Amino acid sequence: MSTKSTKPKPPAKRHDGRQPEALRTVHLERGYLRHAAGSVLISFGDTRVLCAASLEERVPPFLRGSGKGWVTAEYGMLPASTHTRSDREAARGKQSGRTLEIQRLIGRSLRAVVDMEKLGERSITIDCDVLQADGGTRTAAITGSWLALVDAVRRLVASGVLPQSSWKEIIVDQVAAVSVGIVDGRPVCDLNYEEDSKAGVDFNIVMTGAGKFVEIQGTAEHGTFDEKELSSLLKLGQRGIGELLKAQRRTLGND
Amino acid sequence: MSTKSTKPKPPAKRHDGRQPEALRTVHLERGYLRHAAGSVLISFGDTRVLCAASLEERVPPFLRGSGKGWVTAEYGMLPASTHTRSDREAARGKQSGRTLEIQRLIGRSLRAVVDMEKLGERSITIDCDVLQADGGTRTAAITGSWLALVDAVRRLVASGVLPQSSWKEIIVDQVAAVSVGIVDGRPVCDLNYEEDSKAGVDFNIVMTGAGKFVEIQGTAEHGTFDEKELSSLLKLGQRGIGELLKAQRRTLGND
Amino acid sequence: MSTKSTKPKPPAKRHDGRQPEALRTVHLERGYLRHAAGSVLISFGDTRVLCAASLEERVPPFLRGSGKGWVTAEYGMLPASTHTRSDREAARGKQSGRTLEIQRLIGRSLRAVVDMEKLGERSITIDCDVLQADGGTRTAAITGSWLALVDAVRRLVASGVLPQSSWKEIIVDQVAAVSVGIVDGRPVCDLNYEEDSKAGVDFNIVMTGAGKFVEIQGTAEHGTFDEKELSSLLKLGQRGIGELLKAQRRTLGND
Amino acid sequence: MSTKSTKPKPPAKRHDGRQPEALRTVHLERGYLRHAAGSVLISFGDTRVLCAASLEERVPPFLRGSGKGWVTAEYGMLPASTHTRSDREAARGKQSGRTLEIQRLIGRSLRAVVDMEKLGERSITIDCDVLQADGGTRTAAITGSWLALVDAVRRLVASGVLPQSSWKEIIVDQVAAVSVGIVDGRPVCDLNYEEDSKAGVDFNIVMTGAGKFVEIQGTAEHGTFDEKELSSLLKLGQRGIGELLKAQRRTLGND
Amino acid sequence: MSTKSTKPKPPAKRHDGRQPEALRTVHLERGYLRHAAGSVLISFGDTRVLCAASLEERVPPFLRGSGKGWVTAEYGMLPASTHTRSDREAARGKQSGRTLEIQRLIGRSLRAVVDMEKLGERSITIDCDVLQADGGTRTAAITGSWLALVDAVRRLVASGVLPQSSWKEIIVDQVAAVSVGIVDGRPVCDLNYEEDSKAGVDFNIVMTGAGKFVEIQGTAEHGTFDEKELSSLLKLGQRGIGELLKAQRRTLGND
Amino acid sequence: MSTKSTKPKPPAKRHDGRQPEALRTVHLERGYLRHAAGSVLISFGDTRVLCAASLEERVPPFLRGSGKGWVTAEYGMLPASTHTRSDREAARGKQSGRTLEIQRLIGRSLRAVVDMEKLGERSITIDCDVLQADGGTRTAAITGSWLALVDAVRRLVASGVLPQSSWKEIIVDQVAAVSVGIVDGRPVCDLNYEEDSKAGVDFNIVMTGAGKFVEIQGTAEHGTFDEKELSSLLKLGQRGIGELLKAQRRTLGND
Repeated sequence: MSTKSTKPKPPAKRHDGRQPEALRTVHLERGYLRHAAGSVLISFGDTRVLCAASLEERVPPFLRGSGKGWVTAEYGMLPASTHTRSDREAARGKQSGRTLEIQRLIGRSLRAVVDMEKLGERSITIDCDVLQADGGTRTAAITGSWLALVDAVRRLVASGVLPQSSWKEIIVDQVAAVSVGIVDGRPVCDLNYEEDSKAGVDFNIVMTGAGKFVEIQGTAEHGTFDEKELSSLLKLGQRGIGELLKAQRRTLGND
Repeated sequence: MSTKSTKPKPPAKRHDGRQPEALRTVHLERGYLRHAAGSVLISFGDTRVLCAASLEERVPPFLRGSGKGWVTAEYGMLPASTHTRSDREAARGKQSGRTLEIQRLIGRSLRAVVDMEKLGERSITIDCDVLQADGGTRTAAITGSWLALVDAVRRLVASGVLPQSSWKEIIVDQVAAVSVGIVDGRPVCDLNYEEDSKAGVDFNIVMTGAGKFVEIQGTAEHGTFDEKELSSLLKLGQRGIGELLKAQRRTLGND
Repeated sequence: MSTKSTKPKPPAKRHDGRQPEALRTVHLERGYLRHAAGSVLISFGDTRVLCAASLEERVPPFLRGSGKGWVTAEYGMLPASTHTRSDREAARGKQSGRTLEIQRLIGRSLRAVVDMEKLGERSITIDCDVLQADGGTRTAAITGSWLALVDAVRRLVASGVLPQSSWKEIIVDQVAAVSVGIVDGRPVCDLNYEEDSKAGVDFNIVMTGAGKFVEIQGTAEHGTFDEKELSSLLKLGQRGIGELLKAQRRTLGND
Repeated sequence: MSTKSTKPKPPAKRHDGRQPEALRTVHLERGYLRHAAGSVLISFGDTRVLCAASLEERVPPFLRGSGKGWVTAEYGMLPASTHTRSDREAARGKQSGRTLEIQRLIGRSLRAVVDMEKLGERSITIDCDVLQADGGTRTAAITGSWLALVDAVRRLVASGVLPQSSWKEIIVDQVAAVSVGIVDGRPVCDLNYEEDSKAGVDFNIVMTGAGKFVEIQGTAEHGTFDEKELSSLLKLGQRGIGELLKAQRRTLGND
Repeated sequence: MSTKSTKPKPPAKRHDGRQPEALRTVHLERGYLRHAAGSVLISFGDTRVLCAASLEERVPPFLRGSGKGWVTAEYGMLPASTHTRSDREAARGKQSGRTLEIQRLIGRSLRAVVDMEKLGERSITIDCDVLQADGGTRTAAITGSWLALVDAVRRLVASGVLPQSSWKEIIVDQVAAVSVGIVDGRPVCDLNYEEDSKAGVDFNIVMTGAGKFVEIQGTAEHGTFDEKELSSLLKLGQRGIGELLKAQRRTLGND
Repeated sequence: MSTKSTKPKPPAKRHDGRQPEALRTVHLERGYLRHAAGSVLISFGDTRVLCAASLEERVPPFLRGSGKGWVTAEYGMLPASTHTRSDREAARGKQSGRTLEIQRLIGRSLRAVVDMEKLGERSITIDCDVLQADGGTRTAAITGSWLALVDAVRRLVASGVLPQSSWKEIIVDQVAAVSVGIVDGRPVCDLNYEEDSKAGVDFNIVMTGAGKFVEIQGTAEHGTFDEKELSSLLKLGQRGIGELLKAQRRTLGND
């Protein structure tokens, strides 16, 4: 079986002029919303996701009485965020499989860096709403949500609800995510919509500040991939996530 | 039966220092989204609504073959937009009565100023998504949607799809809306969330650029009102809408 | 923009021979149902609505422990009630926006005349089911529901559940509703289906026995209206509601 | 296993004074609704069901192009029809198993006496809405629906849509139904709610004018039954249905 | 009205060579599943149904505090079990009327032989999932479920949860079911799919080990039937159920 | 942050005595169902999944007129398949996020080895229904589905619907899947339920017969993982999939 990834390709420029390893411009705006405990408007190029963290003093049934907290995520796309208007899920009466899959991924990624016992029996829900979609909405959502989560926990610490002296005792590491893929036979980082549409292989990688993996989700929609390609994709991902972790720290400053 | 509106009240200042007739700061940002045919981010103080117009070359079944077009609206609130996080309607699996009522109001308001025969057999859907809610989301949505609609129709005219020489032949007038109500016994304009919560009487008024009414929806949640109160509320509404119409024209410039 | 309401019209007779201000024949039949605490079959001409009040010794979550009661309404149309058979909402799996909007209106209208503290922590649900529809179903529903509500509260007082000596201490005023509109350029009262279909402007007005407004909902489906038209519509409404209030009192007799 | 039906019982009077074989008072009111092609308000004592037949010039997908028609039924109970108010199915978002089961039964019963080829490719939907429930709603619905169906077909014949000279060529026989059961150890006919609640065995029997069975549905909710009991129940049913068939013919007169 | 059942027919062989009274091969495999308290894979010829009983230490609201237990059933068909693949009900978002009707029938049939007071306040849910459908899935489900129910109760007795010395004190009799019908004018037992499709009259009969009826559901989809036909159908049913009861006892052995 | 995967562990035996790299016993039974075009009952130890392929001569809207075919999957678990009975998704009215995620994965995996142009404009739906769950249901489903798909395509070729001389021209390679994970600090292959519950890291790997990856989905539910751990997990996965590919070929024989 022949696949796109095996076709020889000259090192042509990417569609938008980026180098294979280059991220799009990343922008993080903290405190975008007034009511949420923490909120961040993140953009990866034209992709814009509003991440908001809300606190609730209760946990799902399976954790009641455990002394442990919970972090979960919900994801949605505004109908006009996509190239062609998409149906409103509230009007259709159900969330798509894609939506459910993405919000489960975001939730798992954030939980990997939270000490649930120190959080105590309370929940933080992260709403990730895509204002504009141009590829990479789930990786932008994870990257932005971490910062919204930090601000929500900071508020809990500041108000004395949590006895710890710093949010860093509850959120034990950073977490960020990027997509990588093989487009026109060449591994590239942070695919936009056009690249994503024609990618033979498409990965979403989630890593911590300590350089460990939390999630690797790789799909060969139009072909297959081998170990060598996997290895170069993971390298690209590590590099890209490194930059995103820096952007998170830069936005956080001394907080 | 005693009502809040009949209690004598000193002409105390409004909670946020505004005069009774004063609008909150209005801000209109055109072209907020890249994919939508027209889009406007409108804010009435802390209330922020993203209005986006999408075109579709087909009409609902009851208009097929009629030669007439259609304009409809959908409304939603991001879960984190409200003072306390609200459930995601897509997750609950249905839209609330309030949501359906608001989007029907927005649709009717816009249709009142569109010449459907000149629009031809195509539809424009206006998505109004509330990013932050602080009272008046539906009136902000109507006011902003009109501008998004203009930009969508301008694109149709510019691209030659419509034979008219100006969007003004299809959109025959402006339309804008404001809320008025009786708060602490005194008629005020453009209520924020706190005022709205304790208003004895609450009106949403929609008017055209020509100073005609399109919709009047008045509710006495905690009491009743008489003709004199109605009259002063309508005056406040006319005045407020007058300013919003100016803001629309200012944003539009010479387009 | 030209609207139907501005076209000059000769003072032709109404379709069914009524004068502009005339209601259709109103008929109120108390105690139509055997199990409901209160029930009324109301007709406005060919429009027939069955209103039934049921008691329940509990309140919605937001009122628990408040000592206050609640009154709410549900609305439905039998599929064969309409000119062309309409879908059964139970079979479609959801209530339409129109249904939700109407039942919210009925509930608000009734709550405006109930002293919730004296009702105590219990709920009354009013079911308004349209047996036959010929325009004005929501105004008939409000007018009939008030009487069903009275009978339900009378039963609570008679059985000693409520300590008051008369239902009039709990239901502090009457409430009734009528539609008015501009049809063929002329303001008319209590529109039937045919008039409603071609009305340029359509109002639903809810008033108390004391002559105060509870709700005003005016829509210009095909055009707009000005203050003068509004004023004459409100006058027609006040007059019509006056007759409905009398009909309620006549039906109630000395109860 | 002991069952209620085996306990010795004195031939005590029925709760409401009826003889074991006696029906409750049957009342049939034709033409109750103005818009439906045929409509009948039927009562079996306090049980009141509104049956309405609507015509539609199309058939379900599995019959398209077959030249055959279709008859189907929908069933619903008004929330206030029952002893204790029941939930509105439209609000709950789905029809109960009981509702679906009953409407399937009504549809099958009516189809048994219709010549679908002579009806031609069109559908008749019978809506059976229970205004008041006191046992036997489904048998009243079948009995009343037959008459509504006749009137709908008469209209088709009268208007010349169908070439037959009489509705009797399309509706080839009568159909009616009654419940029978073993209450306090004794077979009785046409159970009301109170009898139904304590019946050890409960049957619904549907028969044609020619004395043939269309459906027999017997359930021993609290016990079992033997052939002898079955035989006496069927006799009671035949007798009761005989009276209902007479009532149908009487109502129909010479039509 | 002529019906298929009245046409004279030679005593031709059944499609699959069986005698009119013959069952298909019955196979019962106990303990098919590892986690369920009781499970049976039953086959009636090509019809295969997996019946599994699960215990839960709680009862539905209407039984709380009554000291009585509950037995209920759920029914489903795998999409690929039918001749032409059927939609997955979970994907469509609701169970069909047929599914609800069948699971109600299975539940009633099993409850008829259970002493709910001795079961105590706990529930047993029987899942009946059709792996392959060739007619008679509901009768196979009832017959197999009885055995799964026995094994679940045996486990409760064996573990000392129930104080009785044998499951026979809780399950007071056997219950089994078979379909009978008139096919090509001749009464036959245990119809397969092909026979079921063309049956003029179709019965499902449920009986206890003591030879009493629990349910009789007879439908004349294409015609009607008289007392004589009913009588011969019931005889066929009794005979067939007799064999199924033997098969249950054989499978149970000395348990 | 400490994770389970970093704790030093002696090479203790696995819970069920397997070596770290050992699969559970794999069993493949072809032709389990009579109606489906292809069907396989696959077991990985106690995990049993029934995979059935159904043909349909049409494609989803986005492929109409493209000349290309489609392969999709649906997944479900019988309620009694799990350790504690799980809710029936059809009764709850929606499929869970987990279900949707798994069926999307199965569909993508199968599509990776099908030449859609040669399949032509027709669809194959693979139903994967879990009869018993003990970990690894999605990997068993993928592995079994491939064989069901082969049988469905073989039938198309044999019947002359497809012009190719062998199914191998349409299904261009094998595909199989296995789970690997880090349990008690040690990488193991084909986790059962108990291992899965306590795994720090959990991977599902899908590969082709040619040794290429189709999907890699790795999640660190309780911790994180580094490149070295990833590498050893992938090796385990490759080895396990190699055995599954052999089992597929063995079952297929010379077909």
